[in-house]
Amino acid sequence: MNNNFTIKTSNAFVEHFLIEPYKNGTLDGLSFAVKDNIDIKGYKTSYGSKPWKDMHAKAVYNALCIDQILNCGAKCIGKTIADEFTYSLEGESYFFGTPLNPKAPDHVPGGSSSGSASAVACGLVDFSIGTDSAGSIRVPASLCGIWGMRPSLHRISEAGVLPFMPSVSTVGAFSNNIYTLEKVMRVLLRSENKEKRSIKNIYLLNDAFLIADASVRKAIESSILHLNDREGISLIPIKLSEIVGDHIDLNICNSKALRVLQTAEFSNTVGGWIETVNPELGPGFTASYNNVKNFDRTDLNEALFLCEKFYSKIKNFINDSDLFLFPTTPTVAPRKGALNNHETVLDFYDRTMAITSFAGIGRLPEISIPITSVNKIPVGLSIAAGQYQDEFLLSASRDLFGNITA
Amino acid sequence: MNNNFTIKTSNAFVEHFLIEPYKNGTLDGLSFAVKDNIDIKGYKTSYGSKPWKDMHAKAVYNALCIDQILNCGAKCIGKTIADEFTYSLEGESYFFGTPLNPKAPDHVPGGSSSGSASAVACGLVDFSIGTDSAGSIRVPASLCGIWGMRPSLHRISEAGVLPFMPSVSTVGAFSNNIYTLEKVMRVLLRSENKEKRSIKNIYLLNDAFLIADASVRKAIESSILHLNDREGISLIPIKLSEIVGDHIDLNICNSKALRVLQTAEFSNTVGGWIETVNPELGPGFTASYNNVKNFDRTDLNEALFLCEKFYSKIKNFINDSDLFLFPTTPTVAPRKGALNNHETVLDFYDRTMAITSFAGIGRLPEISIPITSVNKIPVGLSIAAGQYQDEFLLSASRDLFGNITA
Repeated sequence: MNNNFTIKTSNAFVEHFLIEPYKNGTLDGLSFAVKDNIDIKGYKTSYGSKPWKDMHAKAVYNALCIDQILNCGAKCIGKTIADEFTYSLEGESYFFGTPLNPKAPDHVPGGSSSGSASAVACGLVDFSIGTDSAGSIRVPASLCGIWGMRPSLHRISEAGVLPFMPSVSTVGAFSNNIYTLEKVMRVLLRSENKEKRSIKNIYLLNDAFLIADASVRKAIESSILHLNDREGISLIPIKLSEIVGDHIDLNICNSKALRVLQTAEFSNTVGGWIETVNPELGPGFTASYNNVKNFDRTDLNEALFLCEKFYSKIKNFINDSDLFLFPTTPTVAPRKGALNNHETVLDFYDRTMAITSFAGIGRLPEISIPITSVNKIPVGLSIAAGQYQDEFLLSASRDLFGNITA
Repeated sequence: MNNNFTIKTSNAFVEHFLIEPYKNGTLDGLSFAVKDNIDIKGYKTSYGSKPWKDMHAKAVYNALCIDQILNCGAKCIGKTIADEFTYSLEGESYFFGTPLNPKAPDHVPGGSSSGSASAVACGLVDFSIGTDSAGSIRVPASLCGIWGMRPSLHRISEAGVLPFMPSVSTVGAFSNNIYTLEKVMRVLLRSENKEKRSIKNIYLLNDAFLIADASVRKAIESSILHLNDREGISLIPIKLSEIVGDHIDLNICNSKALRVLQTAEFSNTVGGWIETVNPELGPGFTASYNNVKNFDRTDLNEALFLCEKFYSKIKNFINDSDLFLFPTTPTVAPRKGALNNHETVLDFYDRTMAITSFAGIGRLPEISIPITSVNKIPVGLSIAAGQYQDEFLLSASRDLFGNITA
């Protein structure tokens, strides 16, 4: 790990400051940074948009998650760049620039928690806080080659986090190692000490392996071969259709169900403000937002019904001692500027969001592990557990992959 | 049921209009009203506050829950009065007045979904939509003598509902009968047809019976005596401490855990706006808000930890075929003006919120049933089921109490 990065060369931060912890606790001595869609008292929250920042007042209270952490010994050193309205997975901000992906400097860091991922990857903080709805923690963790966790839906309070997609959004964290990640997440999750539970079945999610580039698939497959030697654990390939039935694959799960819900909710939380205020928008966001504007809300009941149905099927399938493994992203980080036409953008988003929709629709906790690379560009392995099995997911990740650091 | 009430004499509405359904569906022919913290396209959302209404633009989109209903055949006839920032259980609005409690005209309707409850109780709509965090559907349902349901936490989308308490708030409905309530809730819950499940254990929540006035306790006990004759169902008295341990009762569950979380989240969602804008506030809200302002956020981790712990204990206790029964509120509706000093206010809120905290902390669905009265003033019986067992709760309520109408 090259540690010669600075706040400035990382380009990860919107603002740099120091907030000392309020109390001592399990995070004593650790430093952290916060994605700029999460309130910090006395600072404006930009939501990745300069007009939003200009038109809103300074936050009066810290987001609840930030108070939880400051009450446990960690110090906050700044706010990090987020993609515009956190509605992107690329990490190139029209208003605030592109945070550095230190392991692949010519490539994007991934988004929308781009700055939080970059700050950790550059070694500037021990951990950082981000948010994840359609992959905004998992994708930059994979593309920057660090650990990142999206918890079970609604396990961590959203109070003081700008409203985005109420039925999909989560608060989570990045770190260079599982030990720090676990400490931070256990504070946010408000976890009791629990008995250690053995891992039973590990399902290899076939759909996601097939969606991935062949090079990514091979790299991920090689990196988990050793799990075959673990006694007491069964590695079982599985298709989504075996879980939810009806020939449903991850592409359908995303396009016909989760993405519709995401679009509808984003209209309510941000779309209305944009229509009312008519702010300056970046070109990338404008292209995405046109889909939101053209969305017909009289057509959403069927998609909402499917979301609930798929959720129930996944919930009934997963046992508390089971895990899923799959590539976090279908590709390594695209080169900066490579997503420059409709086809490449569509391919990147459709394939990436198909994979991220699994935890989204299942409301599952998922951790991306910096396990491998393709031509020295990082790509992550994801491990997911049943809903609310966040503590098991953390201990299982430590057990299986604890030696892996960024 | 006296049906001689009008929009005007009910005093339940903020605005009266007509939105025809977008499509036909399972709610064909039904009319509904919407609490005024839920967006309706083209109208301002007041949040129960005139300054809030003045300082915010008209909604550009319907809340997702409203689109779900309009897509299924029901017509909307208006927006109903809510308590100021929905932060009250009384139903007397400084800015918009007190909706009529038609069965007890000298008594308050209960809040904060006061107008939605009144509109149904006055027979002006077939159903109405409200929100419930600390009892804002259950309490007015009980006090007005109608059916009201708070669903499992996060089962129904909050998109387009003003942010209140993200870890506690729900969207639900009122009706005069279980059949209409079930139809509406199944649209919002996006329910598939499910197999009928038999009821096994019905737990009588001892803490809540003890918190209630003796007159309420006796009325509720008499109204459920016939359940002893139902074959295959066991009626089992239980204390909260038998579920969560450590001598925890509902008063502790509320005061040391849930109420702290509620206060902290309200600071983030509304408190910051009040501190920034310094709007006119009603006297009742001002008194409550002083507690929010004086709350020390460096002290919240222990309460958050307890919320998660109690939740887990309740979750582990309840089986899918089990129900809880208890009085919805500890009292009948207070007379208008009776809550006029610190002691009476404190007594009303402490006892009411102790009971409502059970479903709050357990994230459980709960239905209040207009089963009885004390001196002709209504009081409700509550029936709660396990988290996500909303459909079972609806069918069990129909099975046990389907003959009861308001």
